[in-house]
Amino acid sequence: MAEFPFRIQATDDLARTGSLTTPRGTIATPAFMPVGTAGTVKAMFLHDVRSAGTDIILGNTYHLMLRPGAERIKRLGGLHRFMGWTHPLLTDSGGFQVFSLSALRKMKEGGVEFRSHIDGSMHFLSPERSIEIQADLLGSDIAMQLDECVANPCDHQQAAEAMRLSARWGDRCKAYFGVRDRQSLFGIVQGATYPDLRRESAQRVLETGFDGYAIGGLAVGEGHDAMCDVISLTAPLLPEMRPRYLMGVGKPLDILEAIARGIDMFDCVLPTRSGRHGQAWTWDGAVNIKNARFAEDESPLDEQSSCPASRDYSKAYLHHLFRAGEYLGPMLLSWHNIAFFQAMMMRIRSSIAEGRFSHLRAELNGKWRGSDFGQDDAQSA
Amino acid sequence: MAEFPFRIQATDDLARTGSLTTPRGTIATPAFMPVGTAGTVKAMFLHDVRSAGTDIILGNTYHLMLRPGAERIKRLGGLHRFMGWTHPLLTDSGGFQVFSLSALRKMKEGGVEFRSHIDGSMHFLSPERSIEIQADLLGSDIAMQLDECVANPCDHQQAAEAMRLSARWGDRCKAYFGVRDRQSLFGIVQGATYPDLRRESAQRVLETGFDGYAIGGLAVGEGHDAMCDVISLTAPLLPEMRPRYLMGVGKPLDILEAIARGIDMFDCVLPTRSGRHGQAWTWDGAVNIKNARFAEDESPLDEQSSCPASRDYSKAYLHHLFRAGEYLGPMLLSWHNIAFFQAMMMRIRSSIAEGRFSHLRAELNGKWRGSDFGQDDAQSA
Repeated sequence: MAEFPFRIQATDDLARTGSLTTPRGTIATPAFMPVGTAGTVKAMFLHDVRSAGTDIILGNTYHLMLRPGAERIKRLGGLHRFMGWTHPLLTDSGGFQVFSLSALRKMKEGGVEFRSHIDGSMHFLSPERSIEIQADLLGSDIAMQLDECVANPCDHQQAAEAMRLSARWGDRCKAYFGVRDRQSLFGIVQGATYPDLRRESAQRVLETGFDGYAIGGLAVGEGHDAMCDVISLTAPLLPEMRPRYLMGVGKPLDILEAIARGIDMFDCVLPTRSGRHGQAWTWDGAVNIKNARFAEDESPLDEQSSCPASRDYSKAYLHHLFRAGEYLGPMLLSWHNIAFFQAMMMRIRSSIAEGRFSHLRAELNGKWRGSDFGQDDAQSA
Repeated sequence: MAEFPFRIQATDDLARTGSLTTPRGTIATPAFMPVGTAGTVKAMFLHDVRSAGTDIILGNTYHLMLRPGAERIKRLGGLHRFMGWTHPLLTDSGGFQVFSLSALRKMKEGGVEFRSHIDGSMHFLSPERSIEIQADLLGSDIAMQLDECVANPCDHQQAAEAMRLSARWGDRCKAYFGVRDRQSLFGIVQGATYPDLRRESAQRVLETGFDGYAIGGLAVGEGHDAMCDVISLTAPLLPEMRPRYLMGVGKPLDILEAIARGIDMFDCVLPTRSGRHGQAWTWDGAVNIKNARFAEDESPLDEQSSCPASRDYSKAYLHHLFRAGEYLGPMLLSWHNIAFFQAMMMRIRSSIAEGRFSHLRAELNGKWRGSDFGQDDAQSA
């Protein structure tokens, strides 16, 4: 493993801002990672993802191993070269999608056998194979241990068994990963919403020892408050001087409150997925641009933004594009939403650095709580 | 009407290169106009359309009058402002789409009644209403007269009647258009593939007198050679000192051969439509990027191009994007194809200016004739 330098520059209560320095570039934290599922951040050019303020993106091992195939990407020079992204990449382990997308799966101590949702072919993912794909074939900068993800709700026994299997897989991932100059491996705390299991999981993951620590198994329907409770419990158990990553989160209010509890990294499909469906995120709340009230609204989504998608197109035009089913609608709203999420991260980082985070948190809570920003879970958006 | 200054800077046999100067910008001719059907050049950002070398784009009256509606666009400041394009815009009359897309139509001397293919609502398009929409509501720089388009093949009598009705409609369009400082009106020669009708139509259109002259009713299945025959007959009948526009054309070889016969302007959905379906146009011919032979091809479509879509992405990556059904595939191939068409126009303009056009024509004919570049008609691509 390679423990990338992680420097905390300022804190404000539990919130912290700093930087994680990788050989491919420095990541300002707290960081939001747009998701490039199948080797592309959907409906966006990477230069726009980058110029919106993105330091790192996430690639999905499950999708890429099925299509175009991890060995093929290796032959084509690795994932960075394949998709044309020279900055840091984090890959997930494939575990979450095996549990959420694959048609059929058989769980064993050794790994998970599953059927591709694309063509029905059978595949096997073990801790060793997941790391081989992520680190050796795709060539990601930060790899994640393989874990078993459970549905929500999930009973205590099932959550405990999955958490302990994940812990054993974490040991195997670390052993296979070995020592690497330019790549990091993160462990994952599981345990659903059970405090005792989260504590046990955190202890097990710390015993194994990773370059960074993730909290998994959230944003799967448990709701904002339950999520916050798990983070409040778990984050303080993780090493203060290593990055903490909350997987698959989330809505702006989720991110804000997780940062207030000491989280440094996030990923979510929400800005691009909801953008493709006509939902725009703004400082004043989320809006559905297909709503008839925007048909003749000449104002842009955010005239103060430096993002062309936010600043240079009227809501009336965006409304028309979605009504007409034009590509440009998803292209512009995905771009706008990514730019909004990154602008939010930048504003939060500045507020922590300047000791104003609690004020900003109160202000945004006042605007967002009870609105679309706080309800439901991000994965289902 | 406003006769925009049209300056022919060089000729090479019948081919000519020059410029058409409008209040919104100068158009280098021969010019290719990308089609922005419903207020967007599909799957492209306008800044990329522009930087690919585009001086003018085309908007479709039929689509825009149905959605979002011409009066709405007027209230939103006109089509330029609505879609964010500050350069010249040409609009078609709506006639072609009424005949090719609408569910039901009733033809009268006064105009055409038709049913929207979008929502089944009834609409009426007269010569006066077409000009009102184009010039007064959308605010196009160059409006086209309304004409009756016929299917191919079409018997002589039907073609004659449609051509004569179009000629009468041309008179009415001109009368309604009147004198305008900043807008031009073009007439259209019809007559299918019948030489006598093309001659009669050209004479009638010249008697009416327009700011520019189009040849309509081609690229509807008659084939490359029959198209060339009609152009060879018709173009010399049109005023040498006014722009000649071949509507709805076409494939690169069609464009090349039409320029050799004295045509100055073109529009076609081909580069964007075929781009959305995985077809890439290159100097060596057209290729289907979904073909398995590109799965591990690391070369870009055109490493000499200044267009990022042509230069910075491997064929293997484009292949993957289309196989995976990702937005970025159509986004990149539409961009590449528009850049290729505009690079071709620039190369042709330079060759005419430098007296090398006949050499270039022979070279490109050698590469393209018999390939995908020359077969079929562009509209069906």
